[in-house]
Amino acid sequence: MQPITTELVNQTIIKRPADSYKGTYGRILLIGGNPHFGGAIIMAATAATYSGAGLVTVATDASNFTSLHAQLPEAMVLDYHDTDYLSELLTDMDVIVIGPGLGTDDDAQAILLTVLQNVQPQQRLVIDGSAITLMASGSFDFPAAEIVVTPHQMEWQRLSGLTIADQTPTANHLAQQDLGVIAVVKAHHTTVYTDDQVWFNPGGTPAMATGGMGDTLAGMVGGFAAQFPDFTNAILSAVYLHSAIADDLAQKQYVVLPHQISRLIPVYMHRYQQKS
Amino acid sequence: MQPITTELVNQTIIKRPADSYKGTYGRILLIGGNPHFGGAIIMAATAATYSGAGLVTVATDASNFTSLHAQLPEAMVLDYHDTDYLSELLTDMDVIVIGPGLGTDDDAQAILLTVLQNVQPQQRLVIDGSAITLMASGSFDFPAAEIVVTPHQMEWQRLSGLTIADQTPTANHLAQQDLGVIAVVKAHHTTVYTDDQVWFNPGGTPAMATGGMGDTLAGMVGGFAAQFPDFTNAILSAVYLHSAIADDLAQKQYVVLPHQISRLIPVYMHRYQQKS
Amino acid sequence: MQPITTELVNQTIIKRPADSYKGTYGRILLIGGNPHFGGAIIMAATAATYSGAGLVTVATDASNFTSLHAQLPEAMVLDYHDTDYLSELLTDMDVIVIGPGLGTDDDAQAILLTVLQNVQPQQRLVIDGSAITLMASGSFDFPAAEIVVTPHQMEWQRLSGLTIADQTPTANHLAQQDLGVIAVVKAHHTTVYTDDQVWFNPGGTPAMATGGMGDTLAGMVGGFAAQFPDFTNAILSAVYLHSAIADDLAQKQYVVLPHQISRLIPVYMHRYQQKS
Amino acid sequence: MQPITTELVNQTIIKRPADSYKGTYGRILLIGGNPHFGGAIIMAATAATYSGAGLVTVATDASNFTSLHAQLPEAMVLDYHDTDYLSELLTDMDVIVIGPGLGTDDDAQAILLTVLQNVQPQQRLVIDGSAITLMASGSFDFPAAEIVVTPHQMEWQRLSGLTIADQTPTANHLAQQDLGVIAVVKAHHTTVYTDDQVWFNPGGTPAMATGGMGDTLAGMVGGFAAQFPDFTNAILSAVYLHSAIADDLAQKQYVVLPHQISRLIPVYMHRYQQKS
Repeated sequence: MQPITTELVNQTIIKRPADSYKGTYGRILLIGGNPHFGGAIIMAATAATYSGAGLVTVATDASNFTSLHAQLPEAMVLDYHDTDYLSELLTDMDVIVIGPGLGTDDDAQAILLTVLQNVQPQQRLVIDGSAITLMASGSFDFPAAEIVVTPHQMEWQRLSGLTIADQTPTANHLAQQDLGVIAVVKAHHTTVYTDDQVWFNPGGTPAMATGGMGDTLAGMVGGFAAQFPDFTNAILSAVYLHSAIADDLAQKQYVVLPHQISRLIPVYMHRYQQKS
Repeated sequence: MQPITTELVNQTIIKRPADSYKGTYGRILLIGGNPHFGGAIIMAATAATYSGAGLVTVATDASNFTSLHAQLPEAMVLDYHDTDYLSELLTDMDVIVIGPGLGTDDDAQAILLTVLQNVQPQQRLVIDGSAITLMASGSFDFPAAEIVVTPHQMEWQRLSGLTIADQTPTANHLAQQDLGVIAVVKAHHTTVYTDDQVWFNPGGTPAMATGGMGDTLAGMVGGFAAQFPDFTNAILSAVYLHSAIADDLAQKQYVVLPHQISRLIPVYMHRYQQKS
Repeated sequence: MQPITTELVNQTIIKRPADSYKGTYGRILLIGGNPHFGGAIIMAATAATYSGAGLVTVATDASNFTSLHAQLPEAMVLDYHDTDYLSELLTDMDVIVIGPGLGTDDDAQAILLTVLQNVQPQQRLVIDGSAITLMASGSFDFPAAEIVVTPHQMEWQRLSGLTIADQTPTANHLAQQDLGVIAVVKAHHTTVYTDDQVWFNPGGTPAMATGGMGDTLAGMVGGFAAQFPDFTNAILSAVYLHSAIADDLAQKQYVVLPHQISRLIPVYMHRYQQKS
Repeated sequence: MQPITTELVNQTIIKRPADSYKGTYGRILLIGGNPHFGGAIIMAATAATYSGAGLVTVATDASNFTSLHAQLPEAMVLDYHDTDYLSELLTDMDVIVIGPGLGTDDDAQAILLTVLQNVQPQQRLVIDGSAITLMASGSFDFPAAEIVVTPHQMEWQRLSGLTIADQTPTANHLAQQDLGVIAVVKAHHTTVYTDDQVWFNPGGTPAMATGGMGDTLAGMVGGFAAQFPDFTNAILSAVYLHSAIADDLAQKQYVVLPHQISRLIPVYMHRYQQKS
């Protein structure tokens, strides 16, 4: 196991070239938020936007449009039941995040299927939350694309077949190799599994143990993946900064709220960006 | 009467164990907010979330979903008229808060009945606001559970039969013994009655005399009860910090708004947590 | 003409008695906000709440409930078309504010009529914005109550019959005597007319010349009137602090937004409250 | 090419006369925000309001009213499908901004046509975003009015016929002369073309390369045009301050969010206003 280092993050968060525009920093589509769990996709989209993704679109239940726009006017919206429009938009995206607050009902399954059928090999796909549970059901196959899954330990149990007690780095890595996708297994110290490496995140605090923290990480992973060329390093840097911010906030707070992390992403990305 | 002390609060707010996750900090369901009083359940849920409850769900009138999510995406929502879903969720909860903005009409009574019929002995139940008025009507019995009521003096009059003038600590304690549930009687100096003790809260300021302050306390009591093993100490610590925050804000403000208290809960819990 | 003085404000904003509760600080109903001008009643209610009114209710078009609650959960709501409920609530109120964003159509007239028919002599009534224009139409009479009107110069022209050029303190005072209600005539230096006195406000800045500023003042006047026994002094103190806050903000801002004033009311009321 | 200078900005942002009122600072109507892109018109209206425009009205899809009012109660709203009301309001305006989030469908075209048919020669018209794309379609003619277009490079390609590679200052100026309207061509260093001059903006940072930044500029241009007599200088000053704020924020942030710029406009206008 290797730690994710400050150096890796510094090298990943490149200085933005002067002559760039919003398209340079990627188009990202976040899909989730059913009528009960709308807050999850709001938190994910907030994190993606504050991470600097160039253009952020949210596909969600229409009942969530207003609450999203009331706090994040930067995001565009569509009804995730509008399959034609969803399919059309999918082809334009650099990164797709699916899962936060998606749920597991028939609608959720249909939406996931639309994504899996339309994603292209060069696109990056972040599969989170209930979309992981659906993938674990055996009814869906991972498509050809750059894919990362971001399960917590119970979701990883469903996907890998490993009980939480059996989720050692070695076992997790073997399971990841079987799946063929990058895996971020969220825990006190999160571990990340790629084809050739096992990483662990040095940070993390129990002050982060609150609802929405995973949605925020999924949005950050998506936002970083939209901007930085190396997919693995983008993921690792998002994981690292997500907990670095929380660790700092936890110096003065018993619990850290997801939106507090998102608000600080631009400051921490500046602090950790490439020097000179 | 014993004062609630800083030491009691310090011992209650334990340092979070490193290897914990959101489930460790409890599942809480807050029920209330009719079409007129939706803000009350928003304020209660905000307080519960900022208190660090692991997973927060709000059962309310559907007209309140958007305004809730616009400021608190961390909370999940359901329509409190959906009795089947409500009953199902109730069984999963560690703490249930009922009352903020619930009202007293037929719908409110039906919802309260659903809660009373489904609550389990090991669950913690916070009964606040109009739910207290309903309990006082004589049409409902306290179920077997860990229960606290959080009346202001007029609600306590309805529930205990004691006029405000007669609400001495001794009379209140006798009334509490009859009811068999913990009672937080809100006043300038709030008093708390348990089976074997009478507590008084040293803090409190007239700057707190504003709408929504009680809803915020109910949410804090719920949030603390979701995390800390000793129910009485959780209640006492919430009462203490609620006014400690207000007292500090009142050094510079003529009136203290409920959301200002909620925003500071994480900082005060950190400051008052277990040392070493 | 007499200036409104710091001393007058100090004597008006009494230290809150320790043993008080939200009812001590008044029940206020704010009425306005049609489907086009919903923001006006939101700004007025925000000012009333931050002024420390004990219980704030807003009667508005139902389309405004969500945007109000998304930023001000402290307020309760009702549909101002629900005449029965409105009439019932009116009897419970200490202060009624009508006008911000009300408009002048048939609905607005019907609502104004309901208020004028139900208001009681001991209640305080703040008539602002389009409600002033309606009063000026000649179709409505001032009821027996403690009344203040808060026109800008054009509205005062409609109500008093004085063209703006003719609005001298002497002429205004005569017009006020005819009307028999207190008049706050908003201008660069606002003047206030009571039966026996003409006051002028020393503060005021052109940075306040922006939409919503008058709605905010109406809410403050209502909030102060809900708490302080002397009606005239409550009005004068609200006028004074509204511009005192703006003057301070304008030291660093080219324009001052209404919500920025409201956020600071609790701090300024503390600073200007009764000494010792 | 001439740089936009601090001196030009200082002379443009005049000290507000003491005896002024909200009407002095202009009536502005912002038109845009379809059901997918509602955030764009929210961001534009926010920028116009914080720029100090006296009275701000937003014509948008009715689905955006609540999310707008939840964060900007200062704005009035109307449904942009209500052609009669829209036409009526248009005649009262000093400045009209059309385009942010408008889209290009039949509805958008009908709305644009209503504006083009009703605008008066003395009115100022800011054409942004999808309204530029529609103007470039050849189906619409620029009306007689004071007009500025604010395209990014791709929109300018559509409108001018110049490919991005061919967009030199000289070529752009010739194209602008053909069109007969002022053109703000947004790029790393934005350039502005008037009948007799080419200006370039010294500021700008890639931290601004994020969705909504252009909507914010359009709103600022509108807000400045509502207040300051010289149209060209108003435009140039808005362009200058928009990036000056972003440059300062980018000293500590990797990415700058549009609303962060808007919040600081009043402070920067104060700092850059006319001295003595």
